[in-house]
Amino acid sequence: MESTSQASTPDSTAVAAVSDDRATPIAFDDDALGVVKFDEHGLVPAVVQDVGDGAVLMLGYMNEESLRRSLATGRTWFWSRSRQEYWCKGETSGDRQWIRSVAYDCDGDALLVTVEQDGRGACHTGERTCFYRSFGPPAGG
Amino acid sequence: MESTSQASTPDSTAVAAVSDDRATPIAFDDDALGVVKFDEHGLVPAVVQDVGDGAVLMLGYMNEESLRRSLATGRTWFWSRSRQEYWCKGETSGDRQWIRSVAYDCDGDALLVTVEQDGRGACHTGERTCFYRSFGPPAGG
Repeated sequence: MESTSQASTPDSTAVAAVSDDRATPIAFDDDALGVVKFDEHGLVPAVVQDVGDGAVLMLGYMNEESLRRSLATGRTWFWSRSRQEYWCKGETSGDRQWIRSVAYDCDGDALLVTVEQDGRGACHTGERTCFYRSFGPPAGG
Repeated sequence: MESTSQASTPDSTAVAAVSDDRATPIAFDDDALGVVKFDEHGLVPAVVQDVGDGAVLMLGYMNEESLRRSLATGRTWFWSRSRQEYWCKGETSGDRQWIRSVAYDCDGDALLVTVEQDGRGACHTGERTCFYRSFGPPAGG
């Protein structure tokens, strides 16, 4: 066979993610994306939930391109508001997130992404979830 | 007993909520609130999760006053961006949310509120969760 198979990756940056067989891209088209309402900064909040035990791991922001990359690659891509750049969760730390579903809410202005979480967890502090602190007295205190 | 017990409610609008014995207010002070970073509109996204099965029910926005009311009354108070007014979830519909914990994330710019959900659920459409639609083929389809 001489023909070269062109992988259906959206761009070269996503090749590494798609090469892992745990990645399960989600089919979408422009009509499907049209239900999502991005804010005045072009962003929508994305809640990330562990598909196993339901723990809410983090909240990030996606613009349309990072949502496209997330669906196409099966990995979570966000837009960093502080660094003004795209980031693929876990690409540096190894704490990757493998997308299992992407839901949108009744108003289309929030996303819920369920994932299998690799590594220590979602938080850069080393905690499994970014929501590791609560108001009120400590549990058992 | 002649003495009149003064309820420790933050203001008159919250009296109805606190009178229910399922309400468990969470103690806080200004230092505790100081960890939360509100955006340029004075808002922070609040993810609401069912404390029973972990379902993510909705995402709303709180400003500092609605966070104070939520902690003080044990009911979820949000700021409606479209109506530009406070709303206490379920006050009209009966689908009230009884707060069991309020966590904040590593950056202090997102909240996670666990609740016992009354009634049909959190969504104004009648669905239990606002995230009832997903990208990709329907389940089982």
